[in-house]
Amino acid sequence: MLNGSNQGEVFLIGAGPGDPELLTLKALRMIQEADVVVHDRLVSKAILDLIPDGVERIDVGKKPNHHPVPQHKINTLLKDLAERGRRVARLKGGDPMVFGRGSEEAAVLRDAGIPVSFAPGITAAQGVSASTGVPLTHRGLATSVRFVTGHCRADMPLDLDWDGLAHVDTTLVVYMGHANMQHIAGELMQHGLPSDHPVLVVVNGTRPNESRLVTHLGALQTKRAVIAVPGPVLFIIGRVVSLLDGEGRAETNAILQAPELRQVLHG
Amino acid sequence: MLNGSNQGEVFLIGAGPGDPELLTLKALRMIQEADVVVHDRLVSKAILDLIPDGVERIDVGKKPNHHPVPQHKINTLLKDLAERGRRVARLKGGDPMVFGRGSEEAAVLRDAGIPVSFAPGITAAQGVSASTGVPLTHRGLATSVRFVTGHCRADMPLDLDWDGLAHVDTTLVVYMGHANMQHIAGELMQHGLPSDHPVLVVVNGTRPNESRLVTHLGALQTKRAVIAVPGPVLFIIGRVVSLLDGEGRAETNAILQAPELRQVLHG
Repeated sequence: MLNGSNQGEVFLIGAGPGDPELLTLKALRMIQEADVVVHDRLVSKAILDLIPDGVERIDVGKKPNHHPVPQHKINTLLKDLAERGRRVARLKGGDPMVFGRGSEEAAVLRDAGIPVSFAPGITAAQGVSASTGVPLTHRGLATSVRFVTGHCRADMPLDLDWDGLAHVDTTLVVYMGHANMQHIAGELMQHGLPSDHPVLVVVNGTRPNESRLVTHLGALQTKRAVIAVPGPVLFIIGRVVSLLDGEGRAETNAILQAPELRQVLHG
Repeated sequence: MLNGSNQGEVFLIGAGPGDPELLTLKALRMIQEADVVVHDRLVSKAILDLIPDGVERIDVGKKPNHHPVPQHKINTLLKDLAERGRRVARLKGGDPMVFGRGSEEAAVLRDAGIPVSFAPGITAAQGVSASTGVPLTHRGLATSVRFVTGHCRADMPLDLDWDGLAHVDTTLVVYMGHANMQHIAGELMQHGLPSDHPVLVVVNGTRPNESRLVTHLGALQTKRAVIAVPGPVLFIIGRVVSLLDGEGRAETNAILQAPELRQVLHG
Protein backbone atom coordinates (compact mmCIF):
# COMPACT_ATOMS: atom_id res chain seq x y z
CA MET A 1 0.00 0.00 0.00
CA LEU A 2 1.21 3.49 -0.73
CA ASN A 3 1.68 5.29 2.53
CA GLY A 4 1.09 8.84 1.42
CA SER A 5 4.77 9.72 1.05
CA ASN A 6 6.81 9.09 -2.07
CA GLN A 7 7.22 5.45 -0.98
CA GLY A 8 6.61 2.81 -3.63
CA GLU A 9 5.96 -0.85 -3.12
CA VAL A 10 6.81 -4.23 -4.64
CA PHE A 11 4.47 -7.03 -5.66
CA LEU A 12 6.26 -10.40 -5.80
CA ILE A 13 4.20 -12.31 -8.35
CA GLY A 14 4.20 -15.92 -9.49
CA ALA A 15 3.53 -16.08 -13.22
CA GLY A 16 2.99 -19.84 -13.21
CA PRO A 17 4.48 -22.30 -15.70
CA GLY A 18 3.65 -20.53 -18.96
CA ASP A 19 -0.03 -20.81 -19.88
CA PRO A 20 -1.45 -17.33 -19.19
CA GLU A 21 -4.75 -18.87 -18.03
CA LEU A 22 -2.86 -20.32 -15.04
CA LEU A 23 -2.24 -16.85 -13.60
CA THR A 24 -4.24 -16.16 -10.47
CA LEU A 25 -6.73 -13.30 -10.42
CA LYS A 26 -4.48 -11.62 -7.85
CA ALA A 27 -1.41 -11.88 -10.08
CA LEU A 28 -3.30 -10.35 -12.99
CA ARG A 29 -4.59 -7.49 -10.84
CA MET A 30 -1.10 -6.74 -9.54
CA ILE A 31 0.34 -6.76 -13.08
CA GLN A 32 -2.34 -4.30 -14.11
CA GLU A 33 -1.79 -2.02 -11.10
CA ALA A 34 1.98 -1.76 -11.48
CA ASP A 35 3.80 1.02 -13.27
CA VAL A 36 6.94 -1.04 -13.91
CA VAL A 37 7.37 -4.79 -14.44
CA VAL A 38 10.68 -6.52 -13.67
CA HIS A 39 10.58 -10.02 -15.17
CA ASP A 40 12.62 -13.17 -15.66
CA ARG A 41 13.32 -14.95 -18.94
CA LEU A 42 11.00 -17.85 -18.10
CA VAL A 43 7.91 -15.65 -18.01
CA SER A 44 6.13 -16.50 -21.27
CA LYS A 45 5.43 -13.98 -24.02
CA ALA A 46 1.70 -14.67 -23.66
CA ILE A 47 1.93 -13.41 -20.07
CA LEU A 48 4.09 -10.41 -20.91
CA ASP A 49 1.38 -9.48 -23.45
CA LEU A 50 -0.98 -8.90 -20.48
CA ILE A 51 1.11 -5.95 -19.25
CA PRO A 52 -0.77 -2.75 -20.09
CA ASP A 53 0.65 -0.51 -22.81
CA GLY A 54 2.89 2.23 -21.52
CA VAL A 55 4.09 0.25 -18.49
CA GLU A 56 7.88 0.03 -18.37
CA ARG A 57 9.35 -3.49 -18.67
CA ILE A 58 12.75 -4.52 -17.39
CA ASP A 59 14.07 -7.97 -18.39
CA VAL A 60 16.53 -9.32 -15.80
CA GLY A 61 16.39 -12.86 -17.19
CA LYS A 62 19.23 -15.21 -17.80
CA LYS A 63 19.68 -15.76 -21.52
CA PRO A 64 21.54 -18.81 -22.87
CA ASN A 65 25.25 -18.01 -23.18
CA HIS A 66 24.79 -14.64 -21.51
CA HIS A 67 25.36 -13.82 -17.90
CA PRO A 68 22.09 -13.01 -16.16
CA VAL A 69 21.68 -9.94 -13.99
CA PRO A 70 23.17 -11.14 -10.66
CA GLN A 71 20.72 -11.52 -7.78
CA HIS A 72 22.22 -8.68 -5.73
CA LYS A 73 21.75 -6.30 -8.66
CA ILE A 74 18.11 -7.35 -9.00
CA ASN A 75 17.64 -6.71 -5.27
CA THR A 76 19.14 -3.23 -5.65
CA LEU A 77 17.07 -2.49 -8.75
CA LEU A 78 13.80 -3.38 -6.97
CA LYS A 79 14.78 -1.31 -3.94
CA ASP A 80 15.78 1.70 -6.04
CA LEU A 81 12.58 1.62 -8.08
CA ALA A 82 10.40 1.44 -4.97
CA GLU A 83 12.38 4.19 -3.23
CA ARG A 84 11.68 6.41 -6.23
CA GLY A 85 7.98 5.86 -5.57
CA ARG A 86 7.34 3.24 -8.26
CA ARG A 87 4.80 0.47 -7.90
CA VAL A 88 6.85 -2.53 -9.01
CA ALA A 89 5.55 -5.88 -10.28
CA ARG A 90 8.34 -8.44 -9.85
CA LEU A 91 7.19 -11.22 -12.14
CA LYS A 92 8.77 -14.67 -11.79
CA GLY A 93 8.07 -17.98 -13.47
CA GLY A 94 6.25 -20.52 -11.29
CA ASP A 95 5.76 -19.59 -7.63
CA PRO A 96 8.16 -17.06 -6.06
CA MET A 97 8.25 -19.15 -2.87
CA VAL A 98 9.22 -22.45 -4.55
CA PHE A 99 12.80 -22.25 -5.87
CA GLY A 100 12.02 -18.67 -6.86
CA ARG A 101 14.26 -16.70 -4.50
CA GLY A 102 11.27 -14.46 -3.78
CA SER A 103 12.03 -14.56 -0.07
CA GLU A 104 15.57 -13.27 -0.67
CA GLU A 105 14.23 -10.27 -2.55
CA ALA A 106 11.54 -9.72 0.06
CA ALA A 107 14.12 -9.69 2.88
CA VAL A 108 16.17 -6.95 1.21
CA LEU A 109 13.06 -4.86 0.56
CA ARG A 110 11.68 -5.28 4.08
CA ASP A 111 15.05 -4.27 5.55
CA ALA A 112 14.73 -1.06 3.53
CA GLY A 113 11.22 -0.47 4.88
CA ILE A 114 9.55 -1.08 1.53
CA PRO A 115 6.10 -2.72 1.56
CA VAL A 116 6.09 -6.14 -0.11
CA SER A 117 3.14 -8.33 -0.98
CA PHE A 118 2.93 -11.69 -2.70
CA ALA A 119 0.79 -13.43 -5.30
CA PRO A 120 1.51 -17.16 -5.34
CA GLY A 121 1.80 -18.93 -8.68
CA ILE A 122 0.99 -22.38 -9.99
CA THR A 123 4.30 -24.19 -9.81
CA ALA A 124 5.51 -26.27 -12.76
CA ALA A 125 4.68 -29.57 -11.04
CA GLN A 126 1.04 -28.54 -10.68
CA GLY A 127 0.81 -27.22 -14.23
CA VAL A 128 2.20 -30.43 -15.65
CA SER A 129 0.00 -32.53 -13.39
CA ALA A 130 -3.09 -30.75 -14.74
CA SER A 131 -2.00 -30.89 -18.38
CA THR A 132 -1.05 -34.59 -18.28
CA GLY A 133 -3.55 -35.90 -15.74
CA VAL A 134 -0.72 -37.41 -13.67
CA PRO A 135 -1.51 -36.58 -10.03
CA LEU A 136 1.14 -35.62 -7.49
CA THR A 137 -0.48 -37.81 -4.82
CA HIS A 138 -2.84 -40.74 -5.30
CA ARG A 139 -4.16 -43.28 -2.79
CA GLY A 140 -2.12 -46.44 -2.97
CA LEU A 141 0.56 -44.92 -5.21
CA ALA A 142 1.92 -41.80 -3.48
CA THR A 143 1.17 -40.59 0.03
CA SER A 144 3.48 -37.59 -0.29
CA VAL A 145 5.06 -35.32 -2.88
CA ARG A 146 8.45 -33.69 -2.74
CA PHE A 147 9.99 -30.90 -4.83
CA VAL A 148 13.78 -30.69 -5.13
CA THR A 149 16.11 -28.74 -7.36
CA GLY A 150 18.66 -30.67 -9.41
CA HIS A 151 20.63 -27.53 -10.04
CA CYS A 152 23.82 -26.73 -8.18
CA ARG A 153 26.69 -24.29 -8.54
CA ALA A 154 29.24 -25.36 -11.14
CA ASP A 155 31.94 -25.74 -8.48
CA MET A 156 29.77 -27.70 -6.03
CA PRO A 157 28.69 -31.35 -5.93
CA LEU A 158 24.95 -32.06 -5.91
CA ASP A 159 24.57 -32.87 -2.23
CA LEU A 160 21.05 -34.21 -1.73
CA ASP A 161 19.52 -36.42 0.92
CA TRP A 162 19.49 -39.48 -1.36
CA ASP A 163 18.24 -41.90 1.29
CA GLY A 164 15.23 -39.71 1.95
CA LEU A 165 14.60 -39.05 -1.74
CA ALA A 166 14.69 -42.70 -2.82
CA HIS A 167 11.26 -43.48 -1.44
CA VAL A 168 8.82 -45.54 -3.43
CA ASP A 169 5.64 -44.05 -1.88
CA THR A 170 6.63 -40.44 -2.60
CA THR A 171 6.32 -38.58 -5.87
CA LEU A 172 9.63 -36.83 -6.45
CA VAL A 173 9.60 -33.76 -8.69
CA VAL A 174 12.97 -32.49 -9.87
CA TYR A 175 13.18 -28.86 -11.03
CA MET A 176 16.15 -27.63 -13.06
CA GLY A 177 17.56 -31.15 -13.10
CA HIS A 178 18.39 -31.60 -16.76
CA ALA A 179 22.17 -31.16 -16.50
CA ASN A 180 22.46 -33.56 -13.55
CA MET A 181 19.76 -36.10 -14.37
CA GLN A 182 22.13 -38.97 -15.17
CA HIS A 183 23.76 -38.52 -11.78
CA ILE A 184 20.40 -38.12 -9.97
CA ALA A 185 18.95 -41.28 -11.54
CA GLY A 186 22.09 -43.23 -10.59
CA GLU A 187 21.97 -42.08 -6.97
CA LEU A 188 18.26 -42.86 -6.63
CA MET A 189 18.85 -46.40 -7.92
CA GLN A 190 21.90 -46.86 -5.70
CA HIS A 191 19.72 -45.84 -2.72
CA GLY A 192 17.04 -48.37 -3.46
CA LEU A 193 14.67 -47.31 -6.23
CA PRO A 194 14.27 -49.93 -9.00
CA SER A 195 15.65 -49.21 -12.45
CA ASP A 196 12.14 -49.49 -13.91
CA HIS A 197 10.79 -46.81 -11.53
CA PRO A 198 8.76 -44.61 -13.88
CA VAL A 199 9.71 -41.08 -14.86
CA LEU A 200 7.68 -38.51 -16.78
CA VAL A 201 9.85 -35.90 -18.48
CA VAL A 202 8.04 -32.78 -19.62
CA VAL A 203 9.61 -29.96 -21.60
CA ASN A 204 7.77 -26.62 -21.89
CA GLY A 205 4.98 -27.81 -19.60
CA THR A 206 1.57 -26.09 -20.12
CA ARG A 207 2.87 -24.21 -23.18
CA PRO A 208 1.62 -24.84 -26.73
CA ASN A 209 4.83 -26.78 -27.46
CA GLU A 210 4.60 -29.04 -24.38
CA SER A 211 6.52 -32.30 -25.00
CA ARG A 212 6.39 -35.46 -22.91
CA LEU A 213 8.52 -38.53 -22.56
CA VAL A 214 7.68 -41.53 -20.38
CA THR A 215 10.80 -43.38 -19.36
CA HIS A 216 12.40 -44.95 -16.26
CA LEU A 217 15.37 -44.33 -14.00
CA GLY A 218 17.53 -46.95 -15.71
CA ALA A 219 17.20 -45.25 -19.09
CA LEU A 220 18.04 -41.84 -17.65
CA GLN A 221 21.01 -43.19 -15.76
CA THR A 222 22.54 -44.92 -18.77
CA LYS A 223 21.72 -41.99 -21.07
CA ARG A 224 19.46 -44.17 -23.19
CA ALA A 225 16.98 -41.32 -22.83
CA VAL A 226 18.38 -37.91 -23.63
CA ILE A 227 16.22 -34.83 -23.82
CA ALA A 228 16.93 -32.98 -27.05
CA VAL A 229 14.13 -30.41 -26.95
CA PRO A 230 15.01 -26.91 -25.77
CA GLY A 231 12.99 -25.37 -22.93
CA PRO A 232 12.42 -25.78 -19.19
CA VAL A 233 12.47 -29.47 -18.20
CA LEU A 234 10.60 -31.06 -15.30
CA PHE A 235 11.01 -34.63 -14.06
CA ILE A 236 8.14 -36.34 -12.22
CA ILE A 237 9.47 -39.55 -10.70
CA GLY A 238 7.11 -42.07 -9.14
CA ARG A 239 4.39 -44.64 -9.47
CA VAL A 240 1.78 -41.95 -10.24
CA VAL A 241 3.27 -41.78 -13.74
CA SER A 242 1.56 -45.11 -14.40
CA LEU A 243 -1.77 -43.22 -14.43
CA LEU A 244 -0.81 -41.23 -17.51
CA ASP A 245 -3.81 -41.12 -19.83
CA GLY A 246 -5.13 -44.34 -18.36
CA GLU A 247 -2.47 -46.31 -20.21
CA GLY A 248 -1.69 -48.37 -17.11
CA ARG A 249 1.88 -48.75 -16.05
CA ALA A 250 3.91 -46.69 -18.48
CA GLU A 251 5.71 -48.48 -21.25
CA THR A 252 9.44 -48.00 -21.27
CA ASN A 253 10.38 -45.13 -23.50
CA ALA A 254 6.90 -44.72 -24.98
CA ILE A 255 6.76 -41.31 -26.55
CA LEU A 256 3.38 -39.66 -26.17
CA GLN A 257 2.01 -36.64 -27.98
CA ALA A 258 5.47 -35.30 -28.63
CA PRO A 259 6.61 -35.28 -32.24
CA GLU A 260 9.68 -33.24 -31.29
CA LEU A 261 10.73 -36.02 -28.99
CA ARG A 262 11.43 -38.25 -31.98
CA GLN A 263 14.74 -36.44 -31.61
CA VAL A 264 15.23 -38.25 -28.34
CA LEU A 265 18.28 -40.45 -28.65
CA HIS A 266 18.31 -44.07 -27.61
CA GLY A 267 21.90 -45.28 -27.30
CA MET B 1 -15.43 -30.10 -25.28
CA LEU B 2 -18.94 -31.10 -26.26
CA ASN B 3 -18.72 -33.55 -29.09
CA GLY B 4 -22.00 -32.89 -30.83
CA SER B 5 -23.84 -35.78 -29.21
CA ASN B 6 -25.54 -35.54 -25.87
CA GLN B 7 -22.16 -36.12 -24.17
CA GLY B 8 -21.28 -33.80 -21.32
CA GLU B 9 -17.90 -33.20 -19.78
CA VAL B 10 -16.29 -32.62 -16.40
CA PHE B 11 -13.91 -29.86 -15.35
CA LEU B 12 -11.84 -30.83 -12.30
CA ILE B 13 -11.08 -27.47 -10.74
CA GLY B 14 -8.81 -26.40 -7.90
CA ALA B 15 -10.47 -23.61 -5.92
CA GLY B 16 -7.32 -22.77 -3.96
CA PRO B 17 -7.14 -22.22 -0.21
CA GLY B 18 -10.02 -19.80 0.24
CA ASP B 19 -9.19 -16.29 -0.99
CA PRO B 20 -11.17 -15.95 -4.24
CA GLU B 21 -8.36 -13.87 -5.77
CA LEU B 22 -6.19 -17.00 -5.68
CA LEU B 23 -8.36 -18.72 -8.29
CA THR B 24 -6.65 -19.08 -11.64
CA LEU B 25 -8.17 -17.44 -14.70
CA LYS B 26 -8.79 -20.94 -16.06
CA ALA B 27 -10.67 -22.01 -12.93
CA LEU B 28 -12.87 -18.92 -13.11
CA ARG B 29 -13.61 -19.50 -16.81
CA MET B 30 -14.56 -23.13 -16.17
CA ILE B 31 -16.84 -22.15 -13.27
CA GLN B 32 -18.56 -19.66 -15.55
CA GLU B 33 -18.94 -22.15 -18.43
CA ALA B 34 -20.45 -24.94 -16.33
CA ASP B 35 -24.14 -25.61 -15.96
CA VAL B 36 -23.79 -27.50 -12.69
CA VAL B 37 -21.22 -27.13 -9.89
CA VAL B 38 -20.40 -30.03 -7.56
CA HIS B 39 -18.40 -28.68 -4.62
CA ASP B 40 -16.74 -29.66 -1.36
CA ARG B 41 -17.30 -28.09 2.04
CA LEU B 42 -13.86 -26.45 2.04
CA VAL B 43 -14.65 -24.27 -0.97
CA SER B 44 -15.18 -20.82 0.54
CA LYS B 45 -18.42 -18.87 0.31
CA ALA B 46 -16.58 -16.05 -1.49
CA ILE B 47 -15.75 -18.52 -4.28
CA LEU B 48 -19.23 -20.04 -4.40
CA ASP B 49 -20.49 -16.48 -4.88
CA LEU B 50 -18.69 -16.44 -8.26
CA ILE B 51 -21.00 -19.14 -9.64
CA PRO B 52 -23.43 -17.50 -12.05
CA ASP B 53 -27.08 -17.24 -11.02
CA GLY B 54 -29.22 -20.07 -12.25
CA VAL B 55 -26.41 -22.64 -12.22
CA GLU B 56 -27.28 -25.68 -10.15
CA ARG B 57 -25.07 -26.30 -7.09
CA ILE B 58 -24.58 -29.65 -5.41
CA ASP B 59 -22.77 -29.75 -2.05
CA VAL B 60 -21.05 -33.10 -1.50
CA GLY B 61 -18.94 -31.80 1.37
CA LYS B 62 -18.24 -33.43 4.64
CA LYS B 63 -19.93 -31.51 7.43
CA PRO B 64 -18.79 -31.84 11.05
CA ASN B 65 -20.68 -34.70 12.72
CA HIS B 66 -22.33 -35.70 9.47
CA HIS B 67 -21.24 -38.41 7.10
CA PRO B 68 -19.95 -36.92 3.86
CA VAL B 69 -21.10 -38.22 0.52
CA PRO B 70 -18.82 -41.27 0.03
CA GLN B 71 -16.27 -41.01 -2.77
CA HIS B 72 -17.87 -43.72 -4.88
CA LYS B 73 -21.18 -41.84 -4.81
CA ILE B 74 -19.45 -38.63 -5.90
CA ASN B 75 -17.85 -40.55 -8.77
CA THR B 76 -21.25 -41.89 -9.83
CA LEU B 77 -22.87 -38.48 -9.53
CA LEU B 78 -20.27 -36.84 -11.79
CA LYS B 79 -20.59 -39.65 -14.33
CA ASP B 80 -24.39 -39.52 -14.34
CA LEU B 81 -24.46 -35.74 -14.76
CA ALA B 82 -22.03 -35.85 -17.68
CA GLU B 83 -23.88 -38.75 -19.32
CA ARG B 84 -27.03 -36.65 -19.20
CA GLY B 85 -25.16 -34.03 -21.25
CA ARG B 86 -24.33 -31.66 -18.42
CA ARG B 87 -21.16 -29.56 -18.31
CA VAL B 88 -19.97 -30.19 -14.78
CA ALA B 89 -17.59 -28.06 -12.71
CA ARG B 90 -16.18 -30.26 -9.95
CA LEU B 91 -14.83 -27.69 -7.52
CA LYS B 92 -12.38 -28.77 -4.83
CA GLY B 93 -10.42 -26.87 -2.21
CA GLY B 94 -6.71 -26.45 -2.98
CA ASP B 95 -5.35 -28.36 -5.98
CA PRO B 96 -7.24 -31.47 -7.15
CA MET B 97 -3.90 -33.23 -7.77
CA VAL B 98 -2.46 -32.65 -4.26
CA PHE B 99 -4.39 -34.72 -1.68
CA GLY B 100 -7.53 -33.89 -3.67
CA ARG B 101 -8.50 -37.29 -5.06
CA GLY B 102 -9.00 -35.58 -8.42
CA SER B 103 -7.19 -38.40 -10.18
CA GLU B 104 -9.57 -40.98 -8.70
CA GLU B 105 -12.58 -39.11 -10.09
CA ALA B 106 -10.81 -38.61 -13.42
CA ALA B 107 -10.10 -42.33 -13.75
CA VAL B 108 -13.76 -43.26 -13.29
CA LEU B 109 -14.87 -40.63 -15.82
CA ARG B 110 -12.26 -41.58 -18.42
CA ASP B 111 -13.25 -45.24 -18.10
CA ALA B 112 -16.79 -44.14 -18.99
CA GLY B 113 -15.52 -42.20 -22.01
CA ILE B 114 -16.31 -38.81 -20.51
CA PRO B 115 -13.98 -35.92 -21.39
CA VAL B 116 -12.14 -34.56 -18.36
CA SER B 117 -9.99 -31.46 -18.09
CA PHE B 118 -8.18 -29.91 -15.16
CA ALA B 119 -7.55 -26.47 -13.72
CA PRO B 120 -4.82 -26.61 -11.08
CA GLY B 121 -5.27 -24.64 -7.86
CA ILE B 122 -3.00 -22.86 -5.44
CA THR B 123 -2.45 -25.41 -2.70
CA ALA B 124 -2.73 -24.38 0.97
CA ALA B 125 1.06 -24.41 1.46
CA GLN B 126 1.50 -21.84 -1.29
CA GLY B 127 -1.36 -19.67 -0.10
CA VAL B 128 0.02 -19.58 3.42
CA SER B 129 3.54 -18.97 2.15
CA ALA B 130 2.33 -15.89 0.26
CA SER B 131 0.17 -14.57 3.10
CA THR B 132 2.88 -14.98 5.76
CA GLY B 133 6.02 -14.38 3.69
CA VAL B 134 7.47 -17.71 4.88
CA PRO B 135 8.98 -19.35 1.76
CA LEU B 136 8.79 -23.08 1.08
CA THR B 137 12.43 -23.15 -0.08
CA HIS B 138 15.22 -20.68 0.72
CA ARG B 139 18.93 -20.85 0.04
CA GLY B 140 20.75 -22.03 3.14
CA LEU B 141 17.56 -22.99 4.98
CA ALA B 142 15.60 -25.44 2.80
CA THR B 143 16.72 -27.06 -0.44
CA SER B 144 13.50 -29.03 -0.81
CA VAL B 145 9.86 -28.98 0.22
CA ARG B 146 7.64 -31.94 0.96
CA PHE B 147 3.86 -32.20 1.35
CA VAL B 148 2.40 -35.05 3.42
CA THR B 149 -1.01 -35.79 4.83
CA GLY B 150 -1.33 -36.35 8.55
CA HIS B 151 -4.73 -37.89 8.12
CA CYS B 152 -5.34 -41.62 8.21
CA ARG B 153 -8.30 -43.93 8.50
CA ALA B 154 -9.55 -44.29 12.06
CA ASP B 155 -8.65 -47.99 12.13
CA MET B 156 -5.15 -47.55 10.67
CA PRO B 157 -1.88 -46.35 12.23
CA LEU B 158 -0.22 -43.30 10.64
CA ASP B 159 2.50 -45.11 8.73
CA LEU B 160 4.87 -42.47 7.34
CA ASP B 161 8.49 -42.61 6.29
CA TRP B 162 9.71 -40.91 9.48
CA ASP B 163 13.41 -41.25 8.69
CA GLY B 164 12.92 -39.48 5.37
CA LEU B 165 10.61 -36.84 6.85
CA ALA B 166 12.90 -35.87 9.72
CA HIS B 167 15.25 -33.90 7.53
CA VAL B 168 16.56 -30.54 8.66
CA ASP B 169 17.13 -29.12 5.15
CA THR B 170 13.60 -29.85 3.94
CA THR B 171 10.47 -27.85 4.63
CA LEU B 172 7.80 -30.31 5.69
CA VAL B 173 4.18 -29.28 5.17
CA VAL B 174 1.54 -31.38 6.91
CA TYR B 175 -2.00 -31.24 5.55
CA MET B 176 -4.94 -32.51 7.59
CA GLY B 177 -2.59 -33.23 10.48
CA HIS B 178 -4.43 -31.66 13.39
CA ALA B 179 -5.75 -34.85 14.97
CA ASN B 180 -2.36 -36.59 14.81
CA MET B 181 0.02 -33.70 15.38
CA GLN B 182 1.19 -34.79 18.83
CA HIS B 183 2.16 -38.16 17.40
CA ILE B 184 3.78 -36.62 14.29
CA ALA B 185 5.87 -34.20 16.35
CA GLY B 186 7.01 -37.03 18.61
CA GLU B 187 8.06 -39.24 15.69
CA LEU B 188 9.95 -36.41 13.99
CA MET B 189 11.89 -35.73 17.21
CA GLN B 190 12.54 -39.43 17.76
CA HIS B 191 13.96 -39.59 14.22
CA GLY B 192 16.38 -36.75 14.74
CA LEU B 193 14.75 -33.32 14.51
CA PRO B 194 15.46 -31.07 17.52
CA SER B 195 12.65 -30.18 19.92
CA ASP B 196 13.13 -26.49 19.08
CA HIS B 197 12.66 -27.13 15.34
CA PRO B 198 10.26 -24.33 14.33
CA VAL B 199 6.66 -24.89 13.30
CA LEU B 200 4.21 -22.41 11.84
CA VAL B 201 0.60 -23.39 12.45
CA VAL B 202 -1.96 -21.60 10.29
CA VAL B 203 -5.71 -21.95 10.63
CA ASN B 204 -7.97 -20.67 7.84
CA GLY B 205 -4.99 -19.70 5.69
CA THR B 206 -5.62 -16.85 3.16
CA ARG B 207 -9.13 -16.25 4.57
CA PRO B 208 -10.15 -13.06 6.40
CA ASN B 209 -9.93 -14.98 9.70
CA GLU B 210 -6.43 -16.40 9.09
CA SER B 211 -4.76 -17.22 12.43
CA ARG B 212 -1.10 -18.03 13.03
CA LEU B 213 0.90 -19.62 15.78
CA VAL B 214 4.68 -19.92 15.83
CA THR B 215 5.78 -22.82 17.97
CA HIS B 216 8.20 -25.77 17.91
CA LEU B 217 8.04 -29.54 17.76
CA GLY B 218 8.57 -29.96 21.49
CA ALA B 219 5.52 -27.87 22.34
CA LEU B 220 3.34 -29.74 19.88
CA GLN B 221 4.53 -33.10 21.14
CA THR B 222 3.87 -32.34 24.79
CA LYS B 223 0.56 -30.64 23.98
CA ARG B 224 1.83 -27.36 25.37
CA ALA B 225 0.48 -25.89 22.12
CA VAL B 226 -3.06 -26.89 21.30
CA ILE B 227 -4.97 -25.38 18.41
CA ALA B 228 -8.37 -24.24 19.58
CA VAL B 229 -9.54 -22.32 16.52
CA PRO B 230 -11.97 -24.07 14.17
CA GLY B 231 -11.06 -24.33 10.48
CA PRO B 232 -8.57 -26.06 8.18
CA VAL B 233 -5.14 -26.31 9.83
CA LEU B 234 -1.79 -26.40 8.03
CA PHE B 235 1.59 -27.09 9.65
CA ILE B 236 4.78 -25.74 8.05
CA ILE B 237 7.75 -27.35 9.77
CA GLY B 238 11.26 -26.14 9.10
CA ARG B 239 13.93 -23.50 9.40
CA VAL B 240 12.15 -21.26 6.86
CA VAL B 241 9.71 -20.37 9.64
CA SER B 242 12.52 -18.25 11.11
CA LEU B 243 11.97 -15.80 8.22
CA LEU B 244 8.46 -14.92 9.38
CA ASP B 245 7.99 -11.18 9.05
CA GLY B 246 11.71 -10.62 9.46
CA GLU B 247 11.43 -11.40 13.14
CA GLY B 248 14.52 -13.60 13.02
CA ARG B 249 14.33 -17.06 14.48
CA ALA B 250 10.81 -17.43 15.77
CA GLU B 251 10.22 -17.08 19.46
CA THR B 252 8.72 -20.08 21.15
CA ASN B 253 4.97 -19.83 21.25
CA ALA B 254 4.88 -16.22 20.08
CA ILE B 255 1.38 -15.54 18.88
CA LEU B 256 1.29 -13.25 15.87
CA GLN B 257 -1.68 -11.44 14.44
CA ALA B 258 -4.10 -13.92 15.86
CA PRO B 259 -6.36 -12.69 18.61
CA GLU B 260 -8.37 -15.91 18.42
CA LEU B 261 -5.22 -17.81 19.28
CA ARG B 262 -5.31 -16.38 22.77
CA GLN B 263 -7.51 -19.42 23.20
CA VAL B 264 -4.45 -21.56 22.62
CA LEU B 265 -3.78 -23.58 25.73
CA HIS B 266 -0.37 -23.87 27.32
CA GLY B 267 -0.30 -26.76 29.78
